[in-house]
Amino acid sequence: MTPEEFRSAGHELIDWLADLRTSVPDRPVLAQVDPGQVAGEFSAEPPQGTQSFGQLMAELDSVVVPGLTQTLHPMHFGWFPSNAALSSVLGDIACSGISALGISWESNPSLTEVEQVTCDWMRQLIGLSDQWEGSIQDTASTACLVSMLVARERASGLAQNTGGTQAITQPLVVYTTAQAHSSVAKAALLAGFGWDNVRKVETDPATYAMIPAALEQAIERDLAAGNKPAAIVAAVGTTGTTAIDPVAAIVAIAQRHDCFVHVDAAMAGSVMLLPEYRHLWDGIEGVDAISWNPHKWMGTILDCSLLYFRDIALVEEIMATNPSYLRSNADGAVPQLRDRGIPLGRRFRALKLLFHLRLDGIESIKNRLRRDLENAQWLLQRVEASEHWEVCAPVPLQTICVRHRPDGLSGPELDEHTLAWVGRINQSGAAYLTPSILDGEWMVRVSIGVEATEREHVEALWELMQSACNTR
Amino acid sequence: MTPEEFRSAGHELIDWLADLRTSVPDRPVLAQVDPGQVAGEFSAEPPQGTQSFGQLMAELDSVVVPGLTQTLHPMHFGWFPSNAALSSVLGDIACSGISALGISWESNPSLTEVEQVTCDWMRQLIGLSDQWEGSIQDTASTACLVSMLVARERASGLAQNTGGTQAITQPLVVYTTAQAHSSVAKAALLAGFGWDNVRKVETDPATYAMIPAALEQAIERDLAAGNKPAAIVAAVGTTGTTAIDPVAAIVAIAQRHDCFVHVDAAMAGSVMLLPEYRHLWDGIEGVDAISWNPHKWMGTILDCSLLYFRDIALVEEIMATNPSYLRSNADGAVPQLRDRGIPLGRRFRALKLLFHLRLDGIESIKNRLRRDLENAQWLLQRVEASEHWEVCAPVPLQTICVRHRPDGLSGPELDEHTLAWVGRINQSGAAYLTPSILDGEWMVRVSIGVEATEREHVEALWELMQSACNTR
Repeated sequence: MTPEEFRSAGHELIDWLADLRTSVPDRPVLAQVDPGQVAGEFSAEPPQGTQSFGQLMAELDSVVVPGLTQTLHPMHFGWFPSNAALSSVLGDIACSGISALGISWESNPSLTEVEQVTCDWMRQLIGLSDQWEGSIQDTASTACLVSMLVARERASGLAQNTGGTQAITQPLVVYTTAQAHSSVAKAALLAGFGWDNVRKVETDPATYAMIPAALEQAIERDLAAGNKPAAIVAAVGTTGTTAIDPVAAIVAIAQRHDCFVHVDAAMAGSVMLLPEYRHLWDGIEGVDAISWNPHKWMGTILDCSLLYFRDIALVEEIMATNPSYLRSNADGAVPQLRDRGIPLGRRFRALKLLFHLRLDGIESIKNRLRRDLENAQWLLQRVEASEHWEVCAPVPLQTICVRHRPDGLSGPELDEHTLAWVGRINQSGAAYLTPSILDGEWMVRVSIGVEATEREHVEALWELMQSACNTR
Repeated sequence: MTPEEFRSAGHELIDWLADLRTSVPDRPVLAQVDPGQVAGEFSAEPPQGTQSFGQLMAELDSVVVPGLTQTLHPMHFGWFPSNAALSSVLGDIACSGISALGISWESNPSLTEVEQVTCDWMRQLIGLSDQWEGSIQDTASTACLVSMLVARERASGLAQNTGGTQAITQPLVVYTTAQAHSSVAKAALLAGFGWDNVRKVETDPATYAMIPAALEQAIERDLAAGNKPAAIVAAVGTTGTTAIDPVAAIVAIAQRHDCFVHVDAAMAGSVMLLPEYRHLWDGIEGVDAISWNPHKWMGTILDCSLLYFRDIALVEEIMATNPSYLRSNADGAVPQLRDRGIPLGRRFRALKLLFHLRLDGIESIKNRLRRDLENAQWLLQRVEASEHWEVCAPVPLQTICVRHRPDGLSGPELDEHTLAWVGRINQSGAAYLTPSILDGEWMVRVSIGVEATEREHVEALWELMQSACNTR
């Protein structure tokens, strides 16, 4: 394809995408397709000839679009918001069009240096000191794995340089809670700690946050058993209920036992853009690693997960590769971002942050977050004031966990009722909510924060919820 | 930003990108900037206000563009080709604009199913049987890490479910060669094998390919020492010289010792689109995992690394997470791609493969690869026929490794000469070649395969090389 053919098709594509985004509110939130339906529309054998751009877009319209779940829909209240501000989409399009290759500073100086600059801007915007140095990872899952690998090597005195993790004789232990994201346990297992060495520290039954005294006891039990506490993963905003583990208390314990602390603020990092919320992670300067995802609530398009370390030199020592074919005269004078994570090659992801900040401006982003926090409080009050409705957990951010409990219903019957009413809403395509298990019972998470979601949509959702439970 | 503002700015951006791509041949190949120069053009503090789209594009023009190394330049012969066919760029732009979230099948059925379809098409296009099941990873580095984690768990009987890698008592060993990509050792270290348990099997001094008898001896030495051979990483196309490890012989040894085999065909996977080259990986059906990067020579824009496994159920068992908030009625009937790698969230990367295949067609891609292979043979003949020039390694693909050795020059003096002449070419911006160390001496890799590189560019390069060495 020539640049002129690209220009022509690109204009068509931009119009198609603008139209698609405009149509989002008119589409079902949950894709109304059966398993295998989309795949079944394609030939089993690879295509041999070519299609025109028009034919390809017709295929997208008829086959692909019906299978898109609309996570940008104003009635999407599922999982966590996964916004994609159109300003940042333009930055991602620029990344594609520029088609840079990041494997060393020399392979694309702008890619490396704009990533440095934007990561540092983001650091300042959430109020972190200049002791932190970051990079863009694909997701918080990968970020957590990188942290666990660093924690493992730190605790083992760089075992990778000799016998590796398999030569460790004093078992290294990781501490987290049952409320932590599934990626935390996955990261610990992939890093080789083993399930027997992952402690689910008790959480407060009211707040679902880690209990510092329970952490201390768990560590002491391990020390008594001859194990070595290596890492604590604290969640600032758990996935289930946005519970906030007490960072300062955890740091105090970690320091006594020389433990690495990773803070998973994938969701709640965005709220730290608002100074009035930073007390939620008091003590943060004492941890070792922080991850947060602008690609969630803040709305820089996926994939944009920031990972900050206090001791970046240690990370680079563990992750470094320096083959002869990647050396240049600039070595030593420039960072090599490949040494801050797993992949060698990287895209020019910093452009989506640059575009987002430059075009939307941080003030409009902050105003939107405050709008969502207010909408959550509005819904919280309605639920609290309504008979048979329960709020299952504190609401420090923008996610409300609810159960509708008709008189006397509990146990499996309540679960059946919960899954039935949320299923009715979700399958209808009118809105989407995430059912989740808390304290062994199903509840429903209402996660507010899609860019397009205004108060009217939250009001409409509350009507829908009551209708689905026949309480109106 | 509204969809209409996006439409307007998007059209401007498409024109800007088309112009930029058109201008590539007129720009220096290597960015002519000093370390810190690009970053220094940005304010140290995060921006507070907003910029217009025009202001932002002016910033890109004045600050970012000068710092772009032009890896799509027809005179770029560095590293490996990192093509970005404009058809696939359109697919990547569609991915951005659609802004899908892949965390489960339900979160976007089309994202999951188009990835299944395109991975299967690609499997067929390189002649693999239907026993293989794949997914898209960001890079071959990550793909290799995933393989090493799977190999570790397979050899340890799923140690992650108990004491983890750190509870392994019989050391697990990984076999590769000194010619393997730097990401292989990195993956083995991150997976916890430890440097002491990574064997660099001897390579043939003429071909730089792994010597099967040396592999067998290394395994036997480990068995005698009480170690357990766990994984062999074979390269089909090493980074240094595109050496081809003998897959069939390696598989035969692996089967005798129940060893997992990962084939790193990041570069050379593309040549398997040409049936006449598939003999290069005879025996491939007997390995356990294969990675190859359409984002290299084939030209589907980064990031698009395919990873195929024979036993996908084992991979999913090791990588699976199934938190309550990601469950749906479709579970069991659909694949969950999160269980085939590290990250939970994924972009709609399959669109760039779909667009590439649909718009360019596989035949034009194959013709381009054949053109590059012929150009490599043309240059090979010139170098072989020229006094004081040496070809350092066989040329099975499109990369030629050369030294210019004036009479009597060797050792440090030859290294100085080599780095001087390649440095003159690279710093001039006229072309780019990658210096690399082979057998302890610097040589220069000429890697042909940029989409825009025609015979005339290879001829111009050969003139440049001779001028830089003063041999013309």
